[in-house]
Amino acid sequence: MAEAKENPFMEKIVSLCKRRGFIYQSSEIYGGINGFWDYGPLGAELKRNVKELWWNTMIRQRDDVVGLEATIIMSPEIWKASGHVATFTDPMVDCKTCKGRFRADQLAEIPCPQKPSKMVNECHGEKTAARAFNLMFKTIVGPVETEDNIAYLRPETAQAIFAQFKNVLDSSRVKVPFGIAQIGKAFRNEVTPRNYTFRSREFEQMELEFFIKPDEAIEAISGRVASAAEIGNQQSAIDTSSWGWEAWHKYWVEERIKFYESIGLPRTTLVEYWQKPEELAHYARATVDILFKFPFSKRDEHGELTGEELEGVAARSDFDLSQHERFSGKPMGVFDDELRTAWSKLDEAKQAELSNRYYEARLKYLTKTGVEPAKAEKEAREDAEGLAKGQYIPHVIEPSAGVDRLILALICNAYHEDQMPDEKGKQETRVVLRFHPRVAPIKVAVLPLLKNKPELVKKAQAVRDLLRPHMNVFYDDGGAIGRRYRRQDEIGTPFCVTIDFDTLGEKPELLDTVTLRYRDDGRQERVAICELLPQLLEKIR
Amino acid sequence: MAEAKENPFMEKIVSLCKRRGFIYQSSEIYGGINGFWDYGPLGAELKRNVKELWWNTMIRQRDDVVGLEATIIMSPEIWKASGHVATFTDPMVDCKTCKGRFRADQLAEIPCPQKPSKMVNECHGEKTAARAFNLMFKTIVGPVETEDNIAYLRPETAQAIFAQFKNVLDSSRVKVPFGIAQIGKAFRNEVTPRNYTFRSREFEQMELEFFIKPDEAIEAISGRVASAAEIGNQQSAIDTSSWGWEAWHKYWVEERIKFYESIGLPRTTLVEYWQKPEELAHYARATVDILFKFPFSKRDEHGELTGEELEGVAARSDFDLSQHERFSGKPMGVFDDELRTAWSKLDEAKQAELSNRYYEARLKYLTKTGVEPAKAEKEAREDAEGLAKGQYIPHVIEPSAGVDRLILALICNAYHEDQMPDEKGKQETRVVLRFHPRVAPIKVAVLPLLKNKPELVKKAQAVRDLLRPHMNVFYDDGGAIGRRYRRQDEIGTPFCVTIDFDTLGEKPELLDTVTLRYRDDGRQERVAICELLPQLLEKIR
Repeated sequence: MAEAKENPFMEKIVSLCKRRGFIYQSSEIYGGINGFWDYGPLGAELKRNVKELWWNTMIRQRDDVVGLEATIIMSPEIWKASGHVATFTDPMVDCKTCKGRFRADQLAEIPCPQKPSKMVNECHGEKTAARAFNLMFKTIVGPVETEDNIAYLRPETAQAIFAQFKNVLDSSRVKVPFGIAQIGKAFRNEVTPRNYTFRSREFEQMELEFFIKPDEAIEAISGRVASAAEIGNQQSAIDTSSWGWEAWHKYWVEERIKFYESIGLPRTTLVEYWQKPEELAHYARATVDILFKFPFSKRDEHGELTGEELEGVAARSDFDLSQHERFSGKPMGVFDDELRTAWSKLDEAKQAELSNRYYEARLKYLTKTGVEPAKAEKEAREDAEGLAKGQYIPHVIEPSAGVDRLILALICNAYHEDQMPDEKGKQETRVVLRFHPRVAPIKVAVLPLLKNKPELVKKAQAVRDLLRPHMNVFYDDGGAIGRRYRRQDEIGTPFCVTIDFDTLGEKPELLDTVTLRYRDDGRQERVAICELLPQLLEKIR
Repeated sequence: MAEAKENPFMEKIVSLCKRRGFIYQSSEIYGGINGFWDYGPLGAELKRNVKELWWNTMIRQRDDVVGLEATIIMSPEIWKASGHVATFTDPMVDCKTCKGRFRADQLAEIPCPQKPSKMVNECHGEKTAARAFNLMFKTIVGPVETEDNIAYLRPETAQAIFAQFKNVLDSSRVKVPFGIAQIGKAFRNEVTPRNYTFRSREFEQMELEFFIKPDEAIEAISGRVASAAEIGNQQSAIDTSSWGWEAWHKYWVEERIKFYESIGLPRTTLVEYWQKPEELAHYARATVDILFKFPFSKRDEHGELTGEELEGVAARSDFDLSQHERFSGKPMGVFDDELRTAWSKLDEAKQAELSNRYYEARLKYLTKTGVEPAKAEKEAREDAEGLAKGQYIPHVIEPSAGVDRLILALICNAYHEDQMPDEKGKQETRVVLRFHPRVAPIKVAVLPLLKNKPELVKKAQAVRDLLRPHMNVFYDDGGAIGRRYRRQDEIGTPFCVTIDFDTLGEKPELLDTVTLRYRDDGRQERVAICELLPQLLEKIR
């Protein structure tokens, strides 16, 4: 928990999360296990809501994205193709004296285990040179412990999508441009897990790989490639036939920010950070990190929080599928009839221009990934010839989000302390989580004013049973009504329904009313029971 | 895939699942990885629906169960307490000649790798004695590879629930009897994964641990313990205060069978198998396996399929929490004020009788788990004294289901070949998945009769957009309408909506009608567009 623990705001968050069942330390009764966190009853509901909204927004509400659910343990060959076996490493230094192992770039920050008054870089222990330590968790599949049987827990969900690209293409009615999306656990053996659940060793990702035509194909088909500026804030319903990678990338950045807004993170809490050329991976054409201003993130020179990454939206060129084609020997290209037809109608000069641009791009990829020059040139030429026949390897736009850090952002953003009068009208400080009703773990609490009045209890149970098939309802009959409201405020329940004596005795029964109480301002109004469900449904959508 | 592959019915299932995107082999382009399966677009939707229904039924629709989402990697101490480190093993034999490793109980079934005409038990290779091979996947957490840093991928989700029992109790408004439920991945390094997705190495579980009072507490409070026969098929709404473990066990068996019925598995496809005394784990008081008659399950002497396990409903006594109390040193007991009050009102003879029964039960547990006699007697006596003060460790009823085998059961059960007239009235064989609409991956397909008539397309898109916020809709404009119906039949879409020329030109527009076509019998009827949504919502719930 490191830094977060020293932040008074984060201390309150951590304490609330444990006390009210959002987040617990994994294996706490056994002293915990560093870098692993469990979600309690309310955390589990919050997380489910967020994942469900993502799945619904990214897949079910669209014609052009389908889902996938792949395994965590996959063939180790996948991680060779992706580069994770070779380069997903931290440089580590061993101390020959204390036998400790430390991240080479953190020696000045870590106290020496034997002499904690000194940092590791100042102590007397003799250190080895830095060595690469792979961050993937390793295991053995099958009964025999040999090198051949080593497998890894996936460090990201994305690669499964690339590995199953052809199966999805062949078994679903999809056509480029289209996407494959997945939600699932991933694992990284972080040397220094920190900031509560922000950087943990086991975490969950929501990733979309959106496959698009190369710009040369777009230009052949549409005669032009739309600029990013052109698309503005347009919706997917419009004509996207001239969209190249820049337009799609811009589109997805905007879509993702809208998603965060739709679940209660205002745009002012987010930062759209465009990676600088020197920060980009060699295959990436552009990457935008969507940051949230976490309370523990660094402050800039004006004292403003700079934010920490919630999601990266990367334009990854055709690197991923190309790598899997090379490593698996299985073709990853698609055949695009529209391109073939369009190409045959281009004049020769245009054909040559597009062909040459495609050749250069492929040559660059092949050279950068270590293919020897003569072979690279030959392959790039074949690829360019393929393009003229309607063949290409799709490019990828990847919006990749971390679920756990989003949950933490939602909780940090929702947390407020304000003043509200108690039942006697005296102002008191209350803690309230102002979750958007869409993500709130519990949508409505149903509260009989008194638990020892059977007519109130019976009516309250009827209201509970009326609402429950449609939303997550919490029934609570314990304690003073003001205390019960505060308990719900603290866990972010947007609505409370109180069944009191006014409810009873009114006639006809259908028009009986209850008190509907709003979390954020404590406002109360009387609503007829038969209007309650439609009103609440409207508010939680 | 072993046995399933030799079954012609299963061959069809496997082929359909791959062809239409339900299930793929994991890492297929790299030759696969034995015992791992991915869910394609339709499989992922089917699985999500099933998990969502389980979560909703088991948690959100109830007052007495809350959710949890714990990590896959937990403290290794948990698996010492649960017994998995010591006993979750298969006996394995090594062949000194071929260096193969085989399950000791399968030597007569596995061909010798060097001389496949002989089975391993007949070949000449010199074998070692059988040794215990632990089925948990091992990994190392943190940068240093030492024994201390070994951790396991959880072989079941249940233990996390026990480990977090106290946190949940302290942070949620729950009181015994109550349950904690979880859905998540689990891993078992099966020596012989088989029967397609039925027994794989990575799988998903849906587990409920339902915590109840010991029978002695029930008797003290209610004066009696209800027999299992007494509860019949009663609902949870009724008074459960006299329910001991037998009643609760019976109740959960019945609830779980009702769940399977509610998602389309008729009771006739299920078998309720009561484990025989000699099959029970030493701590279990009763276990009912709910079996599904898979096509690959064995046949009995009458030729009837005997079924394979979908779920086990076990009465686990207080074994689990007791083990974690002993291994963690943290108290797992609850204080029950109702019991304390009731106990003080019992006469001495009754107190002595209940106290003695509780003492005997605790002594049995302590002795069986290896506590030395003198210590066991002392502890059991203390436990009995605690009971009199309202203290006990809750007992557990555990309905534990496998998601993947349930998905396979649903597909096997849904698969039918029947005769249906084509568009010209000629009978043809069709493949249809008769999924219950609740679990069907796609609820409705929206089909414009012709794709080159803009007025049809526009109207069809409007219908799609009308339905989509409420259910998973598939829009398909490609090919003859009959072919499109067949494609939907084959993936189990219960409803098709066709926009044809009759739809257009009718006035007023609000009353325009579409063709609603039913999957199972091919029946078609005309429905007003404005009635479509409520009608479909009614049918898919």
